[in-house]
Amino acid sequence: MNLQAFFKITYGLYVISSKSGNKLNAYIANTAFQVTSEPPQIAISCSKDNYTCQLISESKAFSISILKKTAKPETIGLFGYQSGKDVDKFESIEHEYSATGAPIVTEDCIAWFDCRVTKTLDVGSHILFIANIENNGLIDKKAEPLTYAFYHEVKKGKAPKNAPTYIDESKFTETTDNTNIQHKCLACGHVYDPEAGDPENGIPPNTDFSDLPDDWTCPTCGAGKDMFDTV
Amino acid sequence: MNLQAFFKITYGLYVISSKSGNKLNAYIANTAFQVTSEPPQIAISCSKDNYTCQLISESKAFSISILKKTAKPETIGLFGYQSGKDVDKFESIEHEYSATGAPIVTEDCIAWFDCRVTKTLDVGSHILFIANIENNGLIDKKAEPLTYAFYHEVKKGKAPKNAPTYIDESKFTETTDNTNIQHKCLACGHVYDPEAGDPENGIPPNTDFSDLPDDWTCPTCGAGKDMFDTV
Repeated sequence: MNLQAFFKITYGLYVISSKSGNKLNAYIANTAFQVTSEPPQIAISCSKDNYTCQLISESKAFSISILKKTAKPETIGLFGYQSGKDVDKFESIEHEYSATGAPIVTEDCIAWFDCRVTKTLDVGSHILFIANIENNGLIDKKAEPLTYAFYHEVKKGKAPKNAPTYIDESKFTETTDNTNIQHKCLACGHVYDPEAGDPENGIPPNTDFSDLPDDWTCPTCGAGKDMFDTV
Repeated sequence: MNLQAFFKITYGLYVISSKSGNKLNAYIANTAFQVTSEPPQIAISCSKDNYTCQLISESKAFSISILKKTAKPETIGLFGYQSGKDVDKFESIEHEYSATGAPIVTEDCIAWFDCRVTKTLDVGSHILFIANIENNGLIDKKAEPLTYAFYHEVKKGKAPKNAPTYIDESKFTETTDNTNIQHKCLACGHVYDPEAGDPENGIPPNTDFSDLPDDWTCPTCGAGKDMFDTV
């Protein structure tokens, strides 16, 4: 397989949200596509390991919010690289509630779709949800959508591990000596400087990135160590 | 429904090809997305009215070629707006044959995927084909993919009638007097000038666009009259 070929497929970036009972969650997806126009139906591919997948399976409803090109790294970090089991992702983000009951993220987004699941298809590690679009809205007519290509190439972001398009690039890079060099969070751009450490989170100055505890996370967006790469 | 919101969903543009027995065909799609990474599986949504849909159903195989940003209008016109029942779409285009037996369009494309169908899902007007990617290739590493947004906004193209994302914009525009004004093919950019007519195809000078026969087609790409809009 040629990995570069996969990066030529065009995707946007979306926040997929769902609510079941009192539980609500959302995640970042690059896979949402219309499958019919009459009636308007849309499909998403959701990892079975994803907490939101469980909520969609229970509630049969979800919303899709289209991220804008200028979306804050913290927004992507919040939904893309933290688990809804650990944090309330909606505490600090603007959102509304839709007719289906799914929350709709409106901050950093340009349009949304309120979707009711009509069919599901088990495709292995993921579930394909097919849904009727029951309502939609345009928040910012002039804003451009954030594309995965822009995120990958310009913002140097990469797909979360649960994404259908995740590629473990570490398998394809050679081992190098990372002593005393800066590392950058691929989710939000935060730079870890070993000279400065991360004192607010108990990491003293002059701590190499490789010596950070395994559960250390990005102070800006909460992404794990595996989301960091050398600068 | 807010139609503008639909245009904020990001898509690429692809040539989907298939072969069954001696029959081969291809069409332009904007809906192809990876649904799992291990194994790599991809999904497409194909209109039941589409000849290629029938060939994929029979052969259980298809290829996806990613169109490049600089793809010729004639290529899009050939695959997007003509029927494979009327013309041999592969006669004048560079292509190869894949391991699954599907033809692979290489002209104007930057990468391809050879796909074997594993699951199908009837979603009404369309069939969702889920397929294992058995092989792929990168033709032009440096080229950018053609996105639907670029095609729609810059090239002023619109979705073919069988596309999952087709929107009949004529329902939303007011009637105007189109006497003696130029019309442009939204598929390839060809301009019909009523003063000049289309003598090579039996249309004398000073023939208004509205007076062209219903079966008149674009001399450049073969698109029908409904693909033309006022300049």
